[in-house]
Amino acid sequence: MTSSKPPILSFANDGSCSLFSPTAMPAASSFLWNSRMMAQYNCRGYVTAQFMQPEPAKYSKGPGLEATTFMQPEQPYFSHYPGRFFYIQERATNTLFSAPYEPCRVAQAEFEMRSASNSIQWRVKHQGIEALITTWLGDDEVAEYWSCQLINHSQQQKSLTLTPYFSVGYLSWMNQQGYFDRTLNSIVCPAVTPYQKVEQYFANHHFADTTFLWASTPPDSWQASQQGFEGEGGLHRPSALEQDALPCEAAIYQTPVAALQYQLTLAAGETSEPLLLVFGAAKNTQEIHKRASNWRTTFLELINGDLSPAITKMQAHQFKTDLPDQWLQRQVNHWLHRQVTYHGETNRLTTDPQTRNYLQDALGMCFIEPTRVRQSIITALSQQHQSGEMPDGILLHPDAELKYINQVPHTDHCVWLPMLLETYLQETNDFELLQLQLPYADSEQADTVQSHISKAMDWLKHKTDKRGLSLIEQGDWCDPMNMVGYKGSGVSAWLTIASAYACQLWGNILKQAGESAPTTHYQELAAEFRHSFNHHCWDQDWYLRGISDDGIAFGTAADQQGRIFLNPQSFALLANAPNEQQIEQIRRSVRHHLNTPFGLQMLAPAFTQMHEHIGRVTQKFPGSAENGSVYNHAAAFYIYALYQSGFGDEAYQYLTRLFPSDCPDDQLRRGQLPVFVPNYYRGAHEYHPEHSGRSSQLFNTGSAAWVYRIIIQCLFGFVGDQQGIKLTPQLPSHWQRCSLTRSFRGATVTVNYCRDAAVSQTQIHCPHAKVDGQHISGLQDGQHYDITVTLPT
Amino acid sequence: MTSSKPPILSFANDGSCSLFSPTAMPAASSFLWNSRMMAQYNCRGYVTAQFMQPEPAKYSKGPGLEATTFMQPEQPYFSHYPGRFFYIQERATNTLFSAPYEPCRVAQAEFEMRSASNSIQWRVKHQGIEALITTWLGDDEVAEYWSCQLINHSQQQKSLTLTPYFSVGYLSWMNQQGYFDRTLNSIVCPAVTPYQKVEQYFANHHFADTTFLWASTPPDSWQASQQGFEGEGGLHRPSALEQDALPCEAAIYQTPVAALQYQLTLAAGETSEPLLLVFGAAKNTQEIHKRASNWRTTFLELINGDLSPAITKMQAHQFKTDLPDQWLQRQVNHWLHRQVTYHGETNRLTTDPQTRNYLQDALGMCFIEPTRVRQSIITALSQQHQSGEMPDGILLHPDAELKYINQVPHTDHCVWLPMLLETYLQETNDFELLQLQLPYADSEQADTVQSHISKAMDWLKHKTDKRGLSLIEQGDWCDPMNMVGYKGSGVSAWLTIASAYACQLWGNILKQAGESAPTTHYQELAAEFRHSFNHHCWDQDWYLRGISDDGIAFGTAADQQGRIFLNPQSFALLANAPNEQQIEQIRRSVRHHLNTPFGLQMLAPAFTQMHEHIGRVTQKFPGSAENGSVYNHAAAFYIYALYQSGFGDEAYQYLTRLFPSDCPDDQLRRGQLPVFVPNYYRGAHEYHPEHSGRSSQLFNTGSAAWVYRIIIQCLFGFVGDQQGIKLTPQLPSHWQRCSLTRSFRGATVTVNYCRDAAVSQTQIHCPHAKVDGQHISGLQDGQHYDITVTLPT
Repeated sequence: MTSSKPPILSFANDGSCSLFSPTAMPAASSFLWNSRMMAQYNCRGYVTAQFMQPEPAKYSKGPGLEATTFMQPEQPYFSHYPGRFFYIQERATNTLFSAPYEPCRVAQAEFEMRSASNSIQWRVKHQGIEALITTWLGDDEVAEYWSCQLINHSQQQKSLTLTPYFSVGYLSWMNQQGYFDRTLNSIVCPAVTPYQKVEQYFANHHFADTTFLWASTPPDSWQASQQGFEGEGGLHRPSALEQDALPCEAAIYQTPVAALQYQLTLAAGETSEPLLLVFGAAKNTQEIHKRASNWRTTFLELINGDLSPAITKMQAHQFKTDLPDQWLQRQVNHWLHRQVTYHGETNRLTTDPQTRNYLQDALGMCFIEPTRVRQSIITALSQQHQSGEMPDGILLHPDAELKYINQVPHTDHCVWLPMLLETYLQETNDFELLQLQLPYADSEQADTVQSHISKAMDWLKHKTDKRGLSLIEQGDWCDPMNMVGYKGSGVSAWLTIASAYACQLWGNILKQAGESAPTTHYQELAAEFRHSFNHHCWDQDWYLRGISDDGIAFGTAADQQGRIFLNPQSFALLANAPNEQQIEQIRRSVRHHLNTPFGLQMLAPAFTQMHEHIGRVTQKFPGSAENGSVYNHAAAFYIYALYQSGFGDEAYQYLTRLFPSDCPDDQLRRGQLPVFVPNYYRGAHEYHPEHSGRSSQLFNTGSAAWVYRIIIQCLFGFVGDQQGIKLTPQLPSHWQRCSLTRSFRGATVTVNYCRDAAVSQTQIHCPHAKVDGQHISGLQDGQHYDITVTLPT
Repeated sequence: MTSSKPPILSFANDGSCSLFSPTAMPAASSFLWNSRMMAQYNCRGYVTAQFMQPEPAKYSKGPGLEATTFMQPEQPYFSHYPGRFFYIQERATNTLFSAPYEPCRVAQAEFEMRSASNSIQWRVKHQGIEALITTWLGDDEVAEYWSCQLINHSQQQKSLTLTPYFSVGYLSWMNQQGYFDRTLNSIVCPAVTPYQKVEQYFANHHFADTTFLWASTPPDSWQASQQGFEGEGGLHRPSALEQDALPCEAAIYQTPVAALQYQLTLAAGETSEPLLLVFGAAKNTQEIHKRASNWRTTFLELINGDLSPAITKMQAHQFKTDLPDQWLQRQVNHWLHRQVTYHGETNRLTTDPQTRNYLQDALGMCFIEPTRVRQSIITALSQQHQSGEMPDGILLHPDAELKYINQVPHTDHCVWLPMLLETYLQETNDFELLQLQLPYADSEQADTVQSHISKAMDWLKHKTDKRGLSLIEQGDWCDPMNMVGYKGSGVSAWLTIASAYACQLWGNILKQAGESAPTTHYQELAAEFRHSFNHHCWDQDWYLRGISDDGIAFGTAADQQGRIFLNPQSFALLANAPNEQQIEQIRRSVRHHLNTPFGLQMLAPAFTQMHEHIGRVTQKFPGSAENGSVYNHAAAFYIYALYQSGFGDEAYQYLTRLFPSDCPDDQLRRGQLPVFVPNYYRGAHEYHPEHSGRSSQLFNTGSAAWVYRIIIQCLFGFVGDQQGIKLTPQLPSHWQRCSLTRSFRGATVTVNYCRDAAVSQTQIHCPHAKVDGQHISGLQDGQHYDITVTLPT
């Protein structure tokens, strides 16, 4: 039986995703970015926008002095959260509503938020009036482009007022103001970013501290003082809208707002001319003046559907799947691909990405823009210490500093290098890179990339205790696991086996590069790590997570909380640590202890109190973030490991749970648009089943790269090698056919997979290329290849 | 003609101050404090509460992650600003309003906010229902005590619901929650203050991270999830109040709130039993349990009007004036005295008060609790450097660090020592203090207090250029004047003459102490400073403010902005720098350029753009804070200087403008309750006359101490000396009579002043004491003296 209720979500053929309610999943959001900025758009009209100067900054802020911080999970919204609101009034009928939804929160007859690659559009209908609102980001500038049209669907002429209200917020205790500049036809809100030390004056000197809202049409009235707009009526029924016109008040060391008012008369059926708005940051009015000369042209391009260079470039890289599950297909084709691109292009809007994030975001980018990855590898390795140690963060700007978590010493950063290199070489076959000479952070003496990475592996070995287990210091992949080894002797079981895996991969790469002695060395290192891990870290039915400074093992069957962790199991599989029986035990234990309807929890049961031998992770709220959420990055490792171990069907089951499904109950629970893989869904299913599954709404996550890799390399089995492509698909048994088209080493390759009861083993055909078993070689630059893979049923 | 409109403000005989509108001055507030915390109560129900652990912390926060910062001027309020709201509903009549006023913002028939010394009370009447809400702070605990009663003024029985809603807010991204604990009858909201470094775990370990709301009566229902309370209705009409009961939902890693609901049935005329609530912070539920056992008793004491020890102690120190201006009298007797006590007791809720603030707050305390001041002098001088330099802040806790502005080097801190010492000795005659041996911050070798202060004066001399002008480095009294001398050679004219004044005072003290050679030395130093100042800093009609690193003088007639600064004129008068003609020029210039209806601006015209040879002050918003506001601390210096120069009538005119007056227009403009002197009123009267006069609402200010001193020592002319009291009143010429009663050196002294046409010169009578001209001596501990001062008309 299907419900007759309209869907909450749907996909269009072009991949755009529509949400049909502003209340069903109130935290749902989509995002846009360009080279200078990123903006996250909540379905109800709230917007979180950040730009780089060079550190992340905001031109539209909350109503109080906000902390400067990294992006927070499950960010709560509230009425004065920064937003872009369009108040629409018909005075004759005393009608007032706001589009998209906030702050009036009037139940609308129709609501649609449509997220596309480079735009977000709302269609809202109330009392015969439709508002059509579209937003894009400009290219290479800190500017949101907005268009708003009203349509009179009634049979009568309507006199309407349209009042865009764009939050500017509490900018500064030093200096904040706002006024309407007639020559610019803009609300202009200059401010001075607060500071106290004289050196900051020079550092801040170039700041784009002026928020502006430009309009294509002169408003009938305006308002720049927030308090004067809201009055006693409140944001949901502002006092200023009770008057015939806005009061045209400047903000004089008061919280500014950018509000403009237009009187419109629309005949029955008439659509208004689009009101075009540009909202952003500039250094001063001169800059606004200069930039404004391009805005009308840009709008024409945007409205005509011309794509921004960033999106055009992204789409130039072909990537298209055809899957039996169309819901999943849309998420993968349009959104996962886009999310990986976003990570690769923006580095999560930080000037000092964590080294492991930087390397894994690059891992995803190998499939899309490998030349960019080459530069990332160079940048990262040039910041390596001569000792082989990788720094906690990679500095991407001359003024960048290690901040936040990058001031805490973690010991895992080296292990990600071979995983990135493996992927990079699979996609490019660029083994020449290994011979490139690069300096160190603490020495100008150059060394080859190969030596850099070998040193990194040797450093991992150096950072082990006498048992051969990896010292954790104040954290590994799990940042807040900060008290296992802060006294100097605690070890990470996961890092031990991840080091084994890294050495194993590095050995493989060196082998392909024809380096026989080093190959043996790193294979031996891998074996040593593996041996120590197996000897010290197996506990009844799974591998434990670590052993503290004081010798307390955790992640064991004896623990009441944090009994089992996912990561040691995943990397054990990857590093071939367990025997057949252990593999069974691991798979059973993971399924039993960690699986939920919303994906795999990274540990269970979640901690509900501080454990001083483990650290900060145990203080996090149970089921949030690293404390037992469905942490998708960890889930992706396990899925990758299952595929690598040949458990394709099982892997696929877990894989689909990373994505919001087409089932309304699942959608409501996750509360997230299916346009990105979030860093986590709430876990602690055992304590809070009614909250589990809720998305963090954070789209910065290492999972995007891995899921993308999994789909290409594991599901479709499309792996580059030194000759060309090796095809080892692991399609779900119930799939009859599917296909993949992607750019690969200058060629375009389409692989059509189908099952045929007539074949007993996989058969591959590829006209114009050489096929040898699973291997395809002889691909030419610029050509299109159609490969057919016929699989037994 | 008097208006028939009811007053906005009034004083009761006990000094309590009532405000009769929640909208006339929406930012108006009063404050309470105890030894652990401070809370500022906005008239509409918003509350800013801070407690020390040891740094200032909050248990009731805003809806987003707030910056940790110092108290900001003109703090904007918004709907989700932390508040204590009481929703009151009569379902039968569909009546919903909230007391005091937010968030429903329903126009009430009657409103009164009554601020008393140790309580704040609201009486609100709407639709026949009166809410009587009172709040106090507990002693020595982080707890607000609240009582709420409803009165049915109608002729019918009413069924009401009362729903206290106390904001908890966004506590932490690491861990936040909230639930109802039946055994405690409390909403309990544990959280973990976010941190990332392991050392912070140990530093934060003792934090009182649990917010609680305890109630005297079990609620009928409760709600701890903010979002679940508000729903789509909004804070002004919460969805949870549309139901028969609150949903009883815990906050599961969601923004918590403390909301309780009570069903009440009140007969016509009936008053409900008081609902008693305690809201605050605790380490854990065990602590709440332990503390709760005292709360009912404490409530009884509070409701019975028993005063807290802090207030009792404050009132034990007698201070009472009888002035012709009753409005001013109430502000002085009840509120100025209280504000000075607050500063002296709390050090503005910081662990590292700026040295100049610490010394001047102590200066005010000399008149109230001089033994406490003795310890402050010891604390401050023990942190002096051996070089004589005073640090930028005084550390009051073992874990305290210099923060914010105290990380910027200022060169004025030494000059405040003799001003404090002079006052302390006037009040105590404790010249023995000068011989007390104290260490330095950088040496255990002890030195006498006298040597410490002599070294401080010598250091001031050492910090001069070859012209004898004082080097300013990155600021003097004016913190943000940070670029005059950051290259090393810019000088402060004000600091030069303030140094002259300090040396002059120190010479006087040494003279009284019988130290003849040092006396001469410091008199000579004073003369040298004075000479350099007069030689280099007079500019046409006034003294300039400084000369930058690059030799640019500012605060001169040639300047378009910042033409004249108040402080150099004030201290020039104090240090006897100007000749008679110059004094006239100064007084005329100050009146012409700096005077406004709301007091004296500290500079004019305000800067409207950055001046790189002056610094950050020029970037502040024109008319705010140091950039040309009516900065009361500076105004107080000038008033003090006018009195010292014998211009009592002129001084009095400026003095009254420091206080909100009894004129409604003035009250509305300032927008502040007359219960404290704020740090500033908006200036830049020349640019923004419509905004000038608006209070910063900040009650942390050096002006309190100086105004208190001015009233005692200048207006009443009551100055302690080595024998007893010297009486040199400078009453306004139009005053016929007034009186002062105060504790002084263990005695209680009442001075009655009256004018009598029959006398040609001041006559003083004091039974049981010795009168010698203006001098009174022979006062005995524990006695009460009645002094009569008869003045010529």
